[in-house]
This record gives sequence, structure tokens and C-alpha cells, in this order.
Amino acid sequence: MATAAVVAEEEEEMLLDEQHRINLLRLASNTTSQVAIVGAHVCPIESLDYELIENEFFKQDWRSRGRAYIFRYVTLKWSLCFLIGALAGAVGFFNNLAVENIAGVKFVVTSNMMLSRKYGWAFAVFAGSNFVLTMFASVITAYMAPAAAGSGIPEVKAYLNGVDAPGIFSLRTLVVKVVGCIAAVSSSLHVGKAGPMVHTGACIASILGQGGSRKYHLTCKWLRYFKNDRDRRDLVTCGAGAGVAAAFRAPVGGVLFALESVSSWWRSALLWRAFFTAAVVAVVLRALIDICKSGKCGLFGKGGLIMFDVTSDTVAYHLVDLPPVILLGIIGGILGSFYNFLLEKVLRIYNLINEKGTGYKLLLAATISIFTSCCLFGLPWLASCRSCPADLSEDCPSIGRSGNFKKFQCPPDQYNDLASLFFNTNDDTIRNLYSAGTDAVFQKSSILLFFVTSYFLGIMSYGLVAPSGLFVPVILTGATYGRLVGILMGKHSTLDHGLFAVLGSASLLGGSMRMTVSVCVILLELTNNLLLLPLVMLVLLISKTVADTFNANIYDLIVKLKGLPYLEAHAEPYMRQLTVSDVVTGPLQTFHGVEKVGNIVHVLKTTGHHGFPVIDEPPFSDSPVLFGLILRAHLLVLLKKKEFLHTCALSSFDASKPFSADDFAKRGSGKHDSIDDIELTVEEMEMYIDLHPFTNTSPYTVVETMSLAKALILFREVGLRHLLVVPKSSSRAPVVGILTRHDFMPEHILGLHPFLLKSRWKRLRFGKSTIIKFFSSLC
Amino acid sequence: MATAAVVAEEEEEMLLDEQHRINLLRLASNTTSQVAIVGAHVCPIESLDYELIENEFFKQDWRSRGRAYIFRYVTLKWSLCFLIGALAGAVGFFNNLAVENIAGVKFVVTSNMMLSRKYGWAFAVFAGSNFVLTMFASVITAYMAPAAAGSGIPEVKAYLNGVDAPGIFSLRTLVVKVVGCIAAVSSSLHVGKAGPMVHTGACIASILGQGGSRKYHLTCKWLRYFKNDRDRRDLVTCGAGAGVAAAFRAPVGGVLFALESVSSWWRSALLWRAFFTAAVVAVVLRALIDICKSGKCGLFGKGGLIMFDVTSDTVAYHLVDLPPVILLGIIGGILGSFYNFLLEKVLRIYNLINEKGTGYKLLLAATISIFTSCCLFGLPWLASCRSCPADLSEDCPSIGRSGNFKKFQCPPDQYNDLASLFFNTNDDTIRNLYSAGTDAVFQKSSILLFFVTSYFLGIMSYGLVAPSGLFVPVILTGATYGRLVGILMGKHSTLDHGLFAVLGSASLLGGSMRMTVSVCVILLELTNNLLLLPLVMLVLLISKTVADTFNANIYDLIVKLKGLPYLEAHAEPYMRQLTVSDVVTGPLQTFHGVEKVGNIVHVLKTTGHHGFPVIDEPPFSDSPVLFGLILRAHLLVLLKKKEFLHTCALSSFDASKPFSADDFAKRGSGKHDSIDDIELTVEEMEMYIDLHPFTNTSPYTVVETMSLAKALILFREVGLRHLLVVPKSSSRAPVVGILTRHDFMPEHILGLHPFLLKSRWKRLRFGKSTIIKFFSSLC
Repeated sequence: MATAAVVAEEEEEMLLDEQHRINLLRLASNTTSQVAIVGAHVCPIESLDYELIENEFFKQDWRSRGRAYIFRYVTLKWSLCFLIGALAGAVGFFNNLAVENIAGVKFVVTSNMMLSRKYGWAFAVFAGSNFVLTMFASVITAYMAPAAAGSGIPEVKAYLNGVDAPGIFSLRTLVVKVVGCIAAVSSSLHVGKAGPMVHTGACIASILGQGGSRKYHLTCKWLRYFKNDRDRRDLVTCGAGAGVAAAFRAPVGGVLFALESVSSWWRSALLWRAFFTAAVVAVVLRALIDICKSGKCGLFGKGGLIMFDVTSDTVAYHLVDLPPVILLGIIGGILGSFYNFLLEKVLRIYNLINEKGTGYKLLLAATISIFTSCCLFGLPWLASCRSCPADLSEDCPSIGRSGNFKKFQCPPDQYNDLASLFFNTNDDTIRNLYSAGTDAVFQKSSILLFFVTSYFLGIMSYGLVAPSGLFVPVILTGATYGRLVGILMGKHSTLDHGLFAVLGSASLLGGSMRMTVSVCVILLELTNNLLLLPLVMLVLLISKTVADTFNANIYDLIVKLKGLPYLEAHAEPYMRQLTVSDVVTGPLQTFHGVEKVGNIVHVLKTTGHHGFPVIDEPPFSDSPVLFGLILRAHLLVLLKKKEFLHTCALSSFDASKPFSADDFAKRGSGKHDSIDDIELTVEEMEMYIDLHPFTNTSPYTVVETMSLAKALILFREVGLRHLLVVPKSSSRAPVVGILTRHDFMPEHILGLHPFLLKSRWKRLRFGKSTIIKFFSSLC
Repeated sequence: MATAAVVAEEEEEMLLDEQHRINLLRLASNTTSQVAIVGAHVCPIESLDYELIENEFFKQDWRSRGRAYIFRYVTLKWSLCFLIGALAGAVGFFNNLAVENIAGVKFVVTSNMMLSRKYGWAFAVFAGSNFVLTMFASVITAYMAPAAAGSGIPEVKAYLNGVDAPGIFSLRTLVVKVVGCIAAVSSSLHVGKAGPMVHTGACIASILGQGGSRKYHLTCKWLRYFKNDRDRRDLVTCGAGAGVAAAFRAPVGGVLFALESVSSWWRSALLWRAFFTAAVVAVVLRALIDICKSGKCGLFGKGGLIMFDVTSDTVAYHLVDLPPVILLGIIGGILGSFYNFLLEKVLRIYNLINEKGTGYKLLLAATISIFTSCCLFGLPWLASCRSCPADLSEDCPSIGRSGNFKKFQCPPDQYNDLASLFFNTNDDTIRNLYSAGTDAVFQKSSILLFFVTSYFLGIMSYGLVAPSGLFVPVILTGATYGRLVGILMGKHSTLDHGLFAVLGSASLLGGSMRMTVSVCVILLELTNNLLLLPLVMLVLLISKTVADTFNANIYDLIVKLKGLPYLEAHAEPYMRQLTVSDVVTGPLQTFHGVEKVGNIVHVLKTTGHHGFPVIDEPPFSDSPVLFGLILRAHLLVLLKKKEFLHTCALSSFDASKPFSADDFAKRGSGKHDSIDDIELTVEEMEMYIDLHPFTNTSPYTVVETMSLAKALILFREVGLRHLLVVPKSSSRAPVVGILTRHDFMPEHILGLHPFLLKSRWKRLRFGKSTIIKFFSSLC
């Protein structure tokens, strides 16, 4: 064996001239960082692997599966979807129930104090409860589950793209996310609950899929069928859709959101499964709300789950209304992209602060909470009191929790229109703004002031350490913006201001999140008015187009900022100028078909690679042949079992016998074994393992002359973790290198080939746009 | 060169033992037929190719493309989408306008005759005009464009899966489809216009994308950018969505239909583009309808484009309503799958008749037309006349075109409820059935009779030679079924019968077409009532699940019946037991890097293959090396240009100079050059061509030991036409074979390996179900 290795080495040296260029490139190793910010924490990340691993062992295992297995598998998968839907619906309902009650009690107490003119006390109670709630949310997030910070949509999006980060789907994250989100939203921070619900739904799906939590001894043996990345991807996609469905009570919108914004792979069967999950959410929500109608749920039900039933029967619009709507779309697009621009800047600053330590994170949260309380309580004083309209079905001024006409500091029979916006939960404010026939309720100055405050508060509140969503603030800000346009238009438009508010929300959502079909459907489901459809579509088209000239959508910006290696579906133009051999880096570590244990341990300890080509060499074959690819995880299983051979020969007995399929099952998201946990004696280190039965004999390969763009299509569409590069000529070593996700990252490629920087058509920062780049971003 | 070939042959012989098994397999050549029924005609079909062809020539061409090129490309693509939307909207509107007027005049004349009691004449006029219209539609379809027959959705679905058939997207097909569809629908045949609209939209998109029609000298040089299968696929997807959007005035539903039911590949950018196209459709439709409101469009506007505004404000449902709804879903699923079962049987019989010749096709159409006229005119006589309700805003009995209460043979102040269903356009009948608050209008016997007639007429009318859709008949039959359930439930349910009708439509659509999200959204857009959503979702879930136990969805059945080689996204279980070398068939034709013209001509004339591996052998390389893959289409271009070499050597000059990118552009759907059109002299046959610059140097390859299931993932996800199989060992010939679409077809695989038949878990025919097969079909 030793001689064979020497021969192989000599052969390699002889080929050096030929490989000169490639080797030179390989010296520059892949320096792209494998860590990213997950939630509010820097941690190592890994790729997921959707490839079918075809080795002798798995083939035997697969053949042994009978029909009973498939029956159980399918039954379980649908049952899991049902469970995911039911749990997501229940959590979404519980979320709302808690927020409505906590925030409701806060507003009732404060309002009562103001009624007896104890303004100082009222502020103290209001700001104090906000502060306590914010700090509670921040502390549990910072100390218990940093991965629960923020909306979680970027992490879920990255997961569904094939990027795994530890902790994002743990039970602890789930609990902190739900509790923290309730506290953060109740604390009148300008954050939403939709984003956290997406993460929550995905988390529920992942935990159920991995068969419970091993850490907390909540495992279920039955659920062992989904211990692979493909099944988990399906479940998490359904979970994400269920989360949106539960947050907005919009089942179809939820499915489309998962499809359009979160998932990277999609197939028809998955659509059907996601639809089923969303339907379960809808049914569960409806049943729970029905229970609450009898008044058993405290303050919930007076405000209740978002559903702005804007049934003005006469949604009529004419040609004369188009110019205002188009203008609204254009400005909305600009405002949306500027929102993204500012948010990115603020997040960069917050990241700098957060990196300094947990104390700084909490300080930041405390500051924003106090600032928000001051705004919400202080700014309404600027508005003048207005007389109540004569013909009203509801109380005016209203005192306490619900009602559009807040009394605040006003005398009887008057109301403060700014307080109706500021001094309310976000849901209620949106409902106020969307209401039809309320054109005269709000003053121009109030709407303008609220718009500016809401715009900046939304940007400032997102990057805190607490769970926080972006969706609701953007809808709210957009609704105010739409009302403002409606007021400014005056008699130039016949549209209702409530309708303007809906269109304003659409324009800001289109400008900042760049979703189209899903926003459209969500807004329709929220407002229950399909006649709006053509106008909403028009506004979305315009605002998205305008905003796309300036920057990327907000989730992509955050994914990038967090350093998550997200793999885009389309290739950058410069990727067609490079071949895969131009980016493949080394040094390449390979194993022999029968390998010494010591060598394996050494390689696993000294490199961080997760896949190793297995090369059969004489005497096992006539010439060096690529036998396949073996995974680090599988090598660790082999090393743990310690079924070693004494000589370097093919194992005579059935090498796979000591193993069961469960041994090789993929562990839960973010969990891995480590080589350092395995202890081997010196004798064992001198023994051999026959890798053949455990090597994936048919890895996907590309020839070294293939362009990077074409290799990316294969890598991305099939969902690979490792892509082997083989030489054009058969006289060379059988593998040139391995492409991984990082090799397709623009930072890595441009680091290797800086001259491409000038030919790169990158998307522009705000203010430096050229028309070409805009167009190239569209194709 | 000759020596080299001999050496190669000897080498091959030496390897014979090793390849023994593979060669044995190859002897059984791929016998899968490459013809299919397109429309009502048997014709040869080909695969589309979405692979990036990377040869020297294309690379140079690509590098020469500046930013102006990209600018033009993107502008044009969006402009094309705009045009597709505008044209599809206009055609959809024109379709409706024509149908409403032609059918309207027919009903007015007939009703007037019946008013003066000339019943015989009335029938003669009714049946005569129906006959003339049906025969007109059938004659133009049979003689001018057989590809226009039927709904066209199976053909569009197959095209988007990568199957190209001649004529499906020609200008002639488009014209015949539009005119024929108008005639067929006006002739009171039980057919819809939605399916033909999908084909029409796809047709418009394809014609625009290929730069007009060369045959009719309507070409546009500007549109040369889209002469490849990838861009056309995008455009056709948008066109199909626009067609549905125009047919139902349901833009979001249209996009989702294209996504869920028609397309095989989808990406986020395409969603956005399809959404844009659908939005244009919505705006165009609305503008055109606004013009018609002033009464300039004849009878259109009284009936008008489908939009059943079922705004009963009180859609309240309770737990007690669930059992009837669930029952409705279950029976709907059974009825739907039985519909598919019967339709398949009827289509098989019709195919036998149609194969006998055009005369038989026309005879069949004539028979069905007369039979339909008899049903529509004769059956209402069975119903007893009913007194008009007291408090009605509309006329009763109504005479002529519109109105729910048809007089038919009844005395004044009475109406015939069966005539309101039979003696009406399908759109109006659906509107009648969907109307809320009309529980007392229809008798049980009338609804039952209409349901049975509609069920079977729909099945009998689809396979005719005229353009005909399935969607509207299924909606109509389902609505009647729903009403029937409502009536049978009596006081066990509090739901409105109009609502039952909507749910009935959903259940039959779910049971027969198996769409979920898109049907849901289309029904919501049709009825403009979002509160139905949970119930519609529930019914769809149940009916689809029930129906999936029995057979496949209707489009898949038709695709299969037509013999279109549709590539499923998921692998059949037995595909994991086979390796690619088990199915690859031969003999494999390869070319040398520099090849004799005569050899090329010989091979092209004697084989039907479309891709040939190019092998470099000594003296051009040290050992036989796979240089790449060259396409038949490109070889034909080379042979046409006649830029040949006199010796067998690499061309010294730039071989690609005489060519422009347009020479290699893919021609329109179904159009190909033929080797027989190229005439070469004997001297030219002895000359050589350097194939290197025109060979795709980086084709996708798989190793021969890969399982078929895994190769299918690559083939399907990336959208390939040829997949090269390479040997495991480098000492063998560099290519084992080529996999094409046909190699993945179950018929082909099971033909090669009959023993798999018993392990195949095929989907069941009606009546032979087992629970396992049901479950395996779900996963």
C-alpha cells in the first residue's frame, strides 16, 4: 500500500506541469468566512445537502423498505403537516390573545389615569410598562436564545436555500421567540408579529420533523423518517407558510408568501401540502375565535386578529384616478427603497453596538423603548382637539381600549386624532386608517407627523435584540402614507381615503419587500375586498419597478448583512467568463478506498471539509479511479463504531452489518458530532477502514471547462452541497477539486479574480444608479 | 485518421467482456414512439433543450454582447410581456363579445318564435344554427389547423415540460383556435372557453417570441433575442397565465393556474413577470368593458364576461354546516374522478373514430351537436311551469337573451326553471346557480335532470375536433351538483343554495382537475367573496384527496392518452433500483473532433438522434477524450455553409468567422431543417469539418453507476435534452451512452425490464384501489 501511495505521488508530480495553472489558483484558499450573524449572535454555519446519497449501505436499506414503511412515511408526513398547521394556528391565536390583553390593560389603565388628569402618572405607567416588557423580551432573547432576535425570516430564507445555522430551530428559540414577540409587540415598540410568526412556524415544523428535542428528552421514535434535509425542507416551507397564514389570517397569502419570498425550491406536491397546512391554520383560528366571541378571552375580540373588513360597497374608480395612483406607486417605491437603505445603515450601526456585548444590546433596547414611549405619549399633545362627528355608531370620544376616537387630553365631545394613531396597538391603528368613509376624521398635520414618526421608528426598532417583525410597521407606515396622498390630492381624486391607505400599504410593501403576488393576496384577504385588485396590482408593479432601480429587497439586504451565504438562482454575468477550474481551491484531500484510520483522523482534525473524494488506486483498480464521495458525518459514524480492519484489504465480511440506518440519519438543524469527541487507541489508529460501502458512488460531477454559470445551475437547481470537478483528460488525476456553496459566492470569486470587479454589474447603492444596471437587475 | 479509428475499434473489442452486460442491453433499442396526438392529429414530436450550450463560437458571441444588448433584451422582454397581456386581454374580450352576441341573437330569435308558439320553427332555427356553428368550428379545425382541437392545455403543459410538437403555436392554429372557440361555444355545445384561452395566450406569446411568422412574412428583426427555448418557455408561461386571467377576469388566479397546473419550471423572476402580464390583462379587460357599458357592444354587457358577484353579505356558517360540506366534498371527489375515468374512456373511443379520417371526425361533431340541441330544447318540456315569485326586481318571465326566469312554453306569469338552466349560455347558467337568495327558484327534479345531462354532455363534447375547454362545463356541472346537495340537505343546513353551488363547483374542480390554490383563488375572484375561503379550501382538500385515490388528474390522463412524453418531477420507486447503464440504449453514434463530411451526412441520414458526442482521439489528444456534444441542428448549419477543410487537421483560420449568431438561433416551435434539403457534391463529401468550435464542451454528465432516479433529478431540474453517461473507469471509451427524455419514460424502462412491472406502484384505475397505492401517490 505504501508503494502504491508513492507511485501515486510520483504520478502527481509528473502531472504538475499540466496542472500548473490550476495549482497556482488552488494556493489561494477559500477565505470566505464560514460564520454569519444568526439572530443577534455570530456563529458558524453549514450547508445542507439535498443530494441522494447512493452508497451500498443506503441501497440495501432502501431495498429493505416495504410498503408498510411507505405507508407510515406518508401518513406521518401528512399528520405532521396537520400538526404544524394546528400548532401554528394555536400559537398565532395565543400571540394575538396575549398581545391584545397585555397591551389592552396597559392602555385602559393609562387612559383611566388621563381621564382623572393624572398625566404624569399616566406617562410613568405607560413608559414603565413598555420598558419592563421591552427589557423582558430583550433579556430572555439575549441570554437564552440569541437566534430568536429579529424577524427570523432571513434565517428561514437562508435555511430553505440550504444554509444551516445552529440554534435557529431549537425548542429554546421557539419558546423565546413566542414569549419575546408577545412582550415586544405589547411594549408598543414599533415592531410586528408576522416575521416572528414565520420563524415560529418554521421552528415548529423543524422540531416536529426532527422528532422532538433530544436535549429536553422530548423525542418520538416514530418521527425518525424525516431525518434528512429534503424532508425537513418541505416541512419548514409548510411551517413558514402556516406562520404567515396565522399572523394575518390569510391562508392563501401565507402559501404564496412561502412560495414567493421564503423558499428556494418548490414543486407542485409541496404547494398542495403547504395549502393543506394553511387550511388547517384557517380552521383552527376560526374555531378559536368563535370560542372567544362569547367574551371569555378578556380584551381580545374587541380588537382581535388582523382582519380589516373594509367593505365599502362602492369601490368605483375611473380613468381620472389613475394619475394619483401612479404617483402614489412611484413615490411609494422611492420611500420603500429608501426605507431599505436606511434600515441597512441602522443595522450596521446596531451590529457594531451589539458586538460589544450583551450589556450594550440591552442598553440599546432600553434607549429605543424609552424614546418610543416618549414619542407615542408626547406627540399626540401637538394635535389640536377636534369635535366629534355627529352621526357615529361608536362612542366618541372613546375611553379605554378600543374605539377610533381617543379622548386623550381633550375635553368631552372632542377627540385627538393623533392619539387614535399613536396611542393604540398597531392592528387597531391600521384598522382605523383602512376604514372607509373616514376622510374627515384625520387632519393633514396629524397624518404627516404620524407618517414621519412611524417611518423612522420602524427603522430604529427592527435591529434590537428582541424578536421583531418588519411587516406590520411597513403596512402601518404605508397606510399613513396612502392617507397622506389622499389628503394632498383633495378633490383631484374621487377615491376614498381608506382605499388610499390600502394602496399606500401596497406601495410601501412593494417598495421595501418587493413581493408581488403574495402581498396582493394578503392585502385582499386582509381587507376582504377583491374589487381593489387591479389598483393594488398596478401600485405594486410600479413601486417594485421603481424600487428595484435602487437596491435589493429588504430580506436580501439583511441576509447579505448577516453574512449568510445565500445562493441566488441566477448567475452573475461574469460567471460566464470563468470556468469552474478558475475558482476551485485546494488543497484537495482525498482518501483511498481502504484507508488507514490514522489518516482519516488526521485529515478530519486538520481540515474543515465535509466531503472527501474516495480514489481507488492499484491494486484495487487498474488506474486511479474516482470511486465516489464520502461525507465527514458518515466517517465520524464509522470511527465511532470502531469496526476496523487489520490489513489494507477489502473487507471480507459485510462491512455494513454493524450499522443501522438510524446511525447515519442526519441530526437536527445545527447539531453535529465532532472528531474531537472520538477517542482512539494507537493500535486502532494503525488499522484500516473499507470506505467502499459507505461512499456515495454517484456524486454529481462537472468537467473543469464548464463555465461557473452553468455549474451554478446544476448546483442550485439540484440543491447540492458538494460538486466534484473532474478533468477533461482521462490521463490526469481523476478529481480536480470540489465546489461548494462558498465557491459560488461573489465575494470569493471576486477575491480570486479582482479584475472582474470592474466588469461586475452589481446592484447599486442608493443614489448611484445607472439605467443599465437597473435593466440587468430585471432580467 | 483511419488507423486511429481502427485502433479505437480494437480497443472497444478488448473492452467487450467488461461491457458485456451493457451491450446486451443496448441491443434492445429505444422503441418508445416519438409521435403523439397533438390536437386531433398524430405528428412527430421533439424535445426542447434548456441547457446552456457552451461552445467556442457562442462564447465569442456572448463576449461581444455589450450593455446595449442587455438593455435591448430586457426592454424587449418586458415589452413582449406587455404585448402578450394586452393581446390576450383583447382576444379574451373579443371572444366573449362574439359569443354573447352570436349566442344571444340565437336565443332572442328562438324565444320570439316560441312566444308566437312556432315551436317547430324554433327548434329548427336553434338546432340549425347550432349545427352550422359546430360544423364551421369543426371544419376549420380539421382542415386548417388540427392542432387547435380540444383545450390545448395538455399541449401547452407538455411544451412547458420540454416537449415540442409542430404547429401547436403557429399563426394558423391561433386564428383557428380563436374563431373555432367562438363558434363552438356559441353553438351551445357543452364546452368552455378557458382552455382554448390558455392555448391562445401561449400561442400569442410564442409567436411574438419567435419574432412573428416567417411563413406569412410577418417577421420582426428586433425580436431575434428570444430564439432559444429558455426565453420562449418564460414567455409561454406568461401567456398561459394571461389566457386564464382573460378567460375568468381573474388575474391572480391566472398566475397561480400557470404556476400550479401548466408549468414545470418556475422561478421568482418568472412569477413577477407573469404577474405583470396578468395585471395588463386585467387593465385591458376593464377598459374594454367600460367602453361597452354605454351599450355599443350589442348584447354583450347584459351577460358579459364571467364575474358572478355573489355578494350576499351574510356568509355565516357554523359547526352544524360542516357535515354537509364534508359530504359534498367526498361525493364531489368521487364524481370528479369518475368524470376523469369516463372522459378517458370516451376519448379513447373518439380517437378510434377520429383516426379513420376527417369525414368521421366531422360526422362525430355533427352527431353530438344535434344530440345536444335535442337535449337543450327537448328536456325543458319535462319541467312543470312555476309561478313567478312576487317580489322580483327583474322581469318574470323574461323573454329573449338575459334574465333568470325563462318563459319557454309557459303561460304568462309563470316560468320554466329547467329552461333557465338549459336554454342559456353557460355563463348565464352559472350566474343563475351561484345567485344567493334563490333557494326556492329551482325544483329538485329540474336540478337533478340538469346535473345528469350536464355531467354526460360535458364528457361527450370534449373530444370533438373543435376547440373546446373543460373548465366551464366542470364548473357548471359542479354548481348544479352543489345546488342538488343543498336541496337534499333541506333544513339540515343553514347555508344558502348559491353558496352550495360554489362549493359544488370547487368539489368537482378539485376532483377532476386536482388544482388547489389556483382553483381557490379563481373561485374567489369569480364570486368576489373572500368569506367563502375556509369552506372552499376544506372542500378542495377533501375532494382532491378522495379523487387522488382513484386516478390522476384530467390533464395528466389526457397527456398520457395523447402519448406526449411528459417528464414527472418525482421518480417512480423502481427507478432507484436501476442504474442509468441499465436503460441507456444504442448504438451510440460519435464523431471525431475533425470529421469527414460524408460520415456526418451518413450518420444524420441514418439516425434520428439530435445530439452526438465528439471524441478527440490521437493525434489530437493522447488518449480518447470526450470533447463534448454537438447538436444535429448545428451540424446542419455547418453543412449548409459548406466551409469545409481539405485535410483532416485543425482548421488554421477562425472557423467560426463565416457564421453569425442568427445562423444558430433556434427556429420557432415545431420547425426544423432537414438533412435531405442539403445537397453536397462528391468532392465535398470527401472533405472535413473541424467540429471543435461548435461543440458544446461542457455537457452535463453522469457516471454509469448512478441510479435512474438520481439522474432524473438532474435531467428534470436542469431541463436537459441530452445527458451523457460516462464510464466509471477511465480506461474505457469515454462515453457509454446518451440519456434522453424517452429513456425516463416508464413505458420504455418497463419494456427493457419487464420484471419491474410487478414492483411498479402504478396509479390505479377506477375500482381497483388499494390503500397503499393511494398513499404512495401522495408522497
